[in-house]
Amino acid sequence: MLNQDQLLCLTQALSPKSVAIIGATKEKGKVGYSIIESLILGGFKGKLFPIHPRHEEILGIPVFSDLSLIKEPIDLAIIALNEQKTLQMLEECGRFNVKGVISVAGGFSEVGERGRKLQEQMAAIANDWNIMLIGPNTLGAINSDAKLNATFWPLNLDEVGNISLITQSGGVGQMVGFKMQDEGLAINKMIGLGNRAKLDFDDLLQYLGSDPTTSVVGVFLEGTEKARSFVEVARQVVPKKPVVALKVGRSKLVQEMSVTHTGSMAGSYKMYQDIFTQANIIPASSVPELVSVCKALSLAPLPKGDGIAVVTPTAGPSLILVDLLDSLGCRFYPFEQQTLVKMKELFANVPVVLKNPLDAAAAGYSAEVYSRLVDIVLEDPKVDILIALSIEHKNRRFPAEELIQLSQKHQKPILVYYMGNIEVNLHQHTCQQGGIPLYCSPEEAAWGAGGLVRYSAIKKEMGVING
Amino acid sequence: MLNQDQLLCLTQALSPKSVAIIGATKEKGKVGYSIIESLILGGFKGKLFPIHPRHEEILGIPVFSDLSLIKEPIDLAIIALNEQKTLQMLEECGRFNVKGVISVAGGFSEVGERGRKLQEQMAAIANDWNIMLIGPNTLGAINSDAKLNATFWPLNLDEVGNISLITQSGGVGQMVGFKMQDEGLAINKMIGLGNRAKLDFDDLLQYLGSDPTTSVVGVFLEGTEKARSFVEVARQVVPKKPVVALKVGRSKLVQEMSVTHTGSMAGSYKMYQDIFTQANIIPASSVPELVSVCKALSLAPLPKGDGIAVVTPTAGPSLILVDLLDSLGCRFYPFEQQTLVKMKELFANVPVVLKNPLDAAAAGYSAEVYSRLVDIVLEDPKVDILIALSIEHKNRRFPAEELIQLSQKHQKPILVYYMGNIEVNLHQHTCQQGGIPLYCSPEEAAWGAGGLVRYSAIKKEMGVING
Repeated sequence: MLNQDQLLCLTQALSPKSVAIIGATKEKGKVGYSIIESLILGGFKGKLFPIHPRHEEILGIPVFSDLSLIKEPIDLAIIALNEQKTLQMLEECGRFNVKGVISVAGGFSEVGERGRKLQEQMAAIANDWNIMLIGPNTLGAINSDAKLNATFWPLNLDEVGNISLITQSGGVGQMVGFKMQDEGLAINKMIGLGNRAKLDFDDLLQYLGSDPTTSVVGVFLEGTEKARSFVEVARQVVPKKPVVALKVGRSKLVQEMSVTHTGSMAGSYKMYQDIFTQANIIPASSVPELVSVCKALSLAPLPKGDGIAVVTPTAGPSLILVDLLDSLGCRFYPFEQQTLVKMKELFANVPVVLKNPLDAAAAGYSAEVYSRLVDIVLEDPKVDILIALSIEHKNRRFPAEELIQLSQKHQKPILVYYMGNIEVNLHQHTCQQGGIPLYCSPEEAAWGAGGLVRYSAIKKEMGVING
Repeated sequence: MLNQDQLLCLTQALSPKSVAIIGATKEKGKVGYSIIESLILGGFKGKLFPIHPRHEEILGIPVFSDLSLIKEPIDLAIIALNEQKTLQMLEECGRFNVKGVISVAGGFSEVGERGRKLQEQMAAIANDWNIMLIGPNTLGAINSDAKLNATFWPLNLDEVGNISLITQSGGVGQMVGFKMQDEGLAINKMIGLGNRAKLDFDDLLQYLGSDPTTSVVGVFLEGTEKARSFVEVARQVVPKKPVVALKVGRSKLVQEMSVTHTGSMAGSYKMYQDIFTQANIIPASSVPELVSVCKALSLAPLPKGDGIAVVTPTAGPSLILVDLLDSLGCRFYPFEQQTLVKMKELFANVPVVLKNPLDAAAAGYSAEVYSRLVDIVLEDPKVDILIALSIEHKNRRFPAEELIQLSQKHQKPILVYYMGNIEVNLHQHTCQQGGIPLYCSPEEAAWGAGGLVRYSAIKKEMGVING
C-alpha cells in the first residue's frame, strides 16, 4: 500500500510531462523501437528523450547519449535493456530523481534462482531511491487521459473510456484490449504489473481507486503474496467503483506454470474466489466475461433489484440466455396482472404465451410492436432490468432509438443481445452512446446483466445509496 | 427412424427439383415473402411455384392460384399459413403426392391443449399420406449442395462447407449460422425441426449420416421423446462422422420454458449428458463451443493421441488456454531429450524456459524463429497436436504459410489462437484453406483441440482406423 507521497509520485509518473526511453533503438522489431512508435502513435504531448549511445535521432526525435545530459526533470523512464543493464540504469534513474520506472526486460524471478536474486537487488534499488517501479517483465502501461502509451504495443489512444485494467500479464492485457475494441469500448488506463518487484496489485488498485476518470476497474491475476493488502484496498474502492477480477489457475498445471511466468505462486483458485467474495469483488472466469461485465458497468445505469425480463422474437436463443441468467442471480418474477392486460391488448388475436421471458415470435418482428412491448414490460414494478433480444434480418428494422428512449423514460437498464454477424458497429455505436450495452452472444449479455445486478446488491449491502 | 423408402423420399424433398410455396405473398416483412426471397438469394436452380389466390407474380415469379393447377410433380412444399389453413393444405399436399413439406406456422403444441390436438391431427395427415413433414413451428431447412434455402432467413449459399446442423430452434440455427460465417465456415445443410410432429432427431441424423457431403454433424437439442432411437442412430453414424451436440436446460426454469417453446419436455440435462457419453456424441455447452468443435473437425486432420503442445510469445494467454485444455482431455507431456537439445541450439543465449507449453517470449516474435520452433516441437513423438499462439503486431509477420507446410510435413493438426481484433479474415482464410483452424479466443481454440482429441479417442475405442 502506498503513502500519500508515493501515490502522488505514481500519479505523476503515469501522467508524465517528460519520458525517457532507455534502450531506444532504430531497429524495427525490437522492443526499444516499438515503445517509441507507441508513444508517438498514442499522441503523447509531453517531452520524449530517447537514450542511445550512438544514434542521433529515432523516428525524428533527437536522441541523448546519457541520462545525465538531460537538463530537466524526468517523470517516467522506460528501460528496455537486458536484465544486467536494467539494474545499472535503475540506479542511475534514482540518482537523477526519476519518479517512476517501467522495466520491460525478462530474465528475473521467472527464470529461476539467479533471476530471483537479481530481482531482489532491483527491489532494493527501487526502495533506496523510492522509485515507483513497474515490472520487470512487463508490457508497460497505458494512460489514455494523458495520451501515454508506454508499452511496446503501438496503439492509438484517441478515444478515452472509463474502464481501467490492472494485469499481471501483458498478453492478457492485450487480449482485453482487443476485445474491448471489438466491443466498441476504449480503455482509460492499463497497467501491466509484470513480476511486481516493487509495485503490486494493492498499490495499483489504490491508484485507480483514487483516479477520477476511472469508473470501473478490471483485474487479471495469477497470484500475489500481498493478497491481504489487496483485499483491504478493494474494501475501500468497491463502494466508490466496481472491481471485476479474473483469476487464472483452476488447473494444477497452471499453478505450476505461473511460478515460471511471473515468479509468483498463483495460490489456490478457491482461495482467491473466497477473497473476491470477502472484498465484494465481482469474479469473472474468462476474458470475455471480464470485458462483458465491465462493459455493462461502464455504460448502463444500475438496476434497483434483481428482477429481470427478456423480450425476444425467438425462443431458442432466449433459453440459452435464461440458463445463464438463472445462475447469475437474476430472477424472473411473473408479470403483474396489469402488465398482462396491456399485453393482451397489444397482441389481440396473435397466439403469444404471456410469460417472462416473453417470446413474441413473429409478432415481435415489427419495430413498433417490439418497442411497445418493451415499454409495457419496463412499466412492470417487478422488472428492474431488461434484455432485448433481436435478430438481424434484411426486412426488419432494429429499434435502437426507441430502446434508448425507453431506458431513459423508465430509468432502468436495457441490454441488447443482437444476433447477427460480428460487425454490428452501427447498432453497437448507437446503442452504446445511448447507455445501452450491445452484445453479440447470449453468454456475454447474461454476464453483463449479472454484473449489474451483482454490483447493485453489493452497494445495497454496503449501505451505499445508488445514483 | 426411417425405412429406405422414406429416407429416399426425404433426400429428394431436401434436394428438390420443384418447390411450391403455399402462402406466398407480396407483403414484405411477412414470412411468405421472405421465403421466396430466400429461395432466390440462395440460388435455387429448380422450379418455384408460389401459390396465392389473387397475385399474378411475386418477385417476378408467376403465381398459381391452387396446387391442383401445377401439372408436374412437386418434391417440396413450404406452407406459410396459419395453423388451421396449414392442416387443410397439408392434406392437399398429400393428395398431390408432394414428397416433403415444411410447415412454418406456430400455434401448435407450444401454445397448450388446443394446439396439441391440432398437432396430433397434423401428424395423422402426414402419416396417412406418408409425407416427410418438417415442423410445424420451424424456420425451415437449408441445403447448400442443392442451393436450397427453404427458410424465412434470406441468405446467400455460394459457399458449401461440410458441417451440417439439426436444430430444434430456428433462432439457435441462426446463431450457429452467424457464428459460422464469422468463423469463415459455410453450412452444408441445416434443418430446423420445430415441433417435430413427424420427423424427429433420429430421422434427420439418419439422413445426415447417409449424406455424402456432410462430414460433421452439429445438433442443438431441447428435448425429444425419441432419445432412445436417437442414440441408436448416433451409434451408426459416429464411426463414420463426428456428432457434436448442445443441450439447453441446465436450469429448472428453462426446463419449464421448453414445454412452451416446442411443446417438448426438455428432459433432465444430466440424462442427456449420459446419453451423449453412451452414444459417443461430443457434448458442447454453448453455441461458440459447438461451432469451435465442428470447425476443428471440419478443417483439421485427426491427431493420433492426446499429447498437446502450445507455442506462444506470451505466457498469460497460454495459461488461460492450458486451464481449459487440461479439463478437455489434452495432455502436456514433457518434451523429449532430443527436442530440448534442438531448442537449446535455437535459443542459444536467450533466457527461455524449455517447458511445454513453451513461452518463447520476445524470441518468438520473429516468424523464422517461431516456425523453426514449431517444426522442432512437431518432431517430438509425444506431441500429437499443437496450438500456435500469435499476437497481431504491426511490426511482425504471421507465418501462416510456414504453419500450413509444417502441419502437412508432420501430418499433425495445428490450431492457431490468433490474438487480435475480430476481423482477421486474411489470416483466417489462408490458414483455414490450408487445413489450420484459426480461433480468436483461447476458449475456442481449446474447445477445437479438445474435440479433435476426443473424436480421435472415440474412433480408437470403436476400432475404427483413422485416415
